Amino acid sequence: MPLDVRIVLVEPLYQGNVGSVTRVMKNFGFSDLVLVNPCKLEGEARAMSSHARDILKSARIVSTLTEAVEGANIVIGTTGIAGLKIYEHIRMPFYVPRELKEKLTGMSGTVAILFGREDQGFNNEELKTCDMILTIPTSDIYPIMNLSHAVGIVLYELSDIKAGDRPLAEGFDLGLLHEHLGELMVDIDYPAHKKDKTMLMFKRIFGRAQLIPREVQTLRGVIGRIQRRM
Amino acid sequence: MPLDVRIVLVEPLYQGNVGSVTRVMKNFGFSDLVLVNPCKLEGEARAMSSHARDILKSARIVSTLTEAVEGANIVIGTTGIAGLKIYEHIRMPFYVPRELKEKLTGMSGTVAILFGREDQGFNNEELKTCDMILTIPTSDIYPIMNLSHAVGIVLYELSDIKAGDRPLAEGFDLGLLHEHLGELMVDIDYPAHKKDKTMLMFKRIFGRAQLIPREVQTLRGVIGRIQRRM
Repeated sequence: MPLDVRIVLVEPLYQGNVGSVTRVMKNFGFSDLVLVNPCKLEGEARAMSSHARDILKSARIVSTLTEAVEGANIVIGTTGIAGLKIYEHIRMPFYVPRELKEKLTGMSGTVAILFGREDQGFNNEELKTCDMILTIPTSDIYPIMNLSHAVGIVLYELSDIKAGDRPLAEGFDLGLLHEHLGELMVDIDYPAHKKDKTMLMFKRIFGRAQLIPREVQTLRGVIGRIQRRM
Repeated sequence: MPLDVRIVLVEPLYQGNVGSVTRVMKNFGFSDLVLVNPCKLEGEARAMSSHARDILKSARIVSTLTEAVEGANIVIGTTGIAGLKIYEHIRMPFYVPRELKEKLTGMSGTVAILFGREDQGFNNEELKTCDMILTIPTSDIYPIMNLSHAVGIVLYELSDIKAGDRPLAEGFDLGLLHEHLGELMVDIDYPAHKKDKTMLMFKRIFGRAQLIPREVQTLRGVIGRIQRRM
């Protein structure tokens, strides 16, 4: 079974970067590109895409992140070291590309990898959508990478990944598990001011663990049993 | 002792690429850039270099490859898969970035990494200057990478390399060893039409082996002894 990698650019500002991203995607054998509210894509995007104009043409353009990650089994947000500092209060463990590769080896399913705006990266709501956070280790002196360079390095690492028979859980089922956990938090009168952080922690733990479908079902079974006992 | 990495761009055609190269060099903490007969470097180069304008400014501009690799202990030529096919008759073993990293781990000295023209890559004479050939594994469908993407991926791999105490032999001493071998070939009446290929083979073997200074001296001692015996 294959491991499909989808690249999602969230509100890219410069069409030259979008073109360069398609080129490096094709260099490493990837083709699934989704653009969330992109800038205009005209001559410069086509010029930079070079012989990858087919990928530029077939990119799906959507207006929300929800549409962009539809059908993905796991959603990965890419942020620079600077981004990690900014979003520190969301306290997330993060992975470097080589670790991501190790984690995905032997899996099958669709992995959506998100890249934020050239200037602002992601906002907090967008980061909360992510199951895992990926960062490219860069120099502290100048950590801000060009968008297409960042995509290139991630895809370079993933280009020779060995997929396998272990299916990633469906995003839909993970969503149900998450809702179910949310209900449980209410049932146990979990303090409202802590709930969001704790729910995000669960999301990140499950993201890191790369749950398989059976595990999701079992977890939901456990939660259901707890609820019935209370 | 440090392992210094020098990036050499041979006759780059597009100033935007040169600027992008400086940016990704700074992202990964590298700063030594040499340009052999570059295109004009004006506003677009500065724009693409972004906050790495210091590297663009301090880049050395030279007119020959010989000047560019002066003082380097080892010279590495980077070529795409397409390039490998074109230069097949020079029959060279080649390395991917991860293997290069492994080979250089624990070494000290200066490594010059050469990147060719955007359209034509290197010519054969330039390739013969190289001790090792490096290639980035890409898709057969579209193997031609943007210059700055290629530099970025190589530097990404080398950015966390652990240098060590094992000094690389001096390029100057390696040159003497090579000349000495050339003399020996004459002494033994080696067929002239095979000599160039065999000499290149020796160069590549020594390049792959990452000779230390003592080994170069010992090899020269052996050659001298053979010559005296004959």
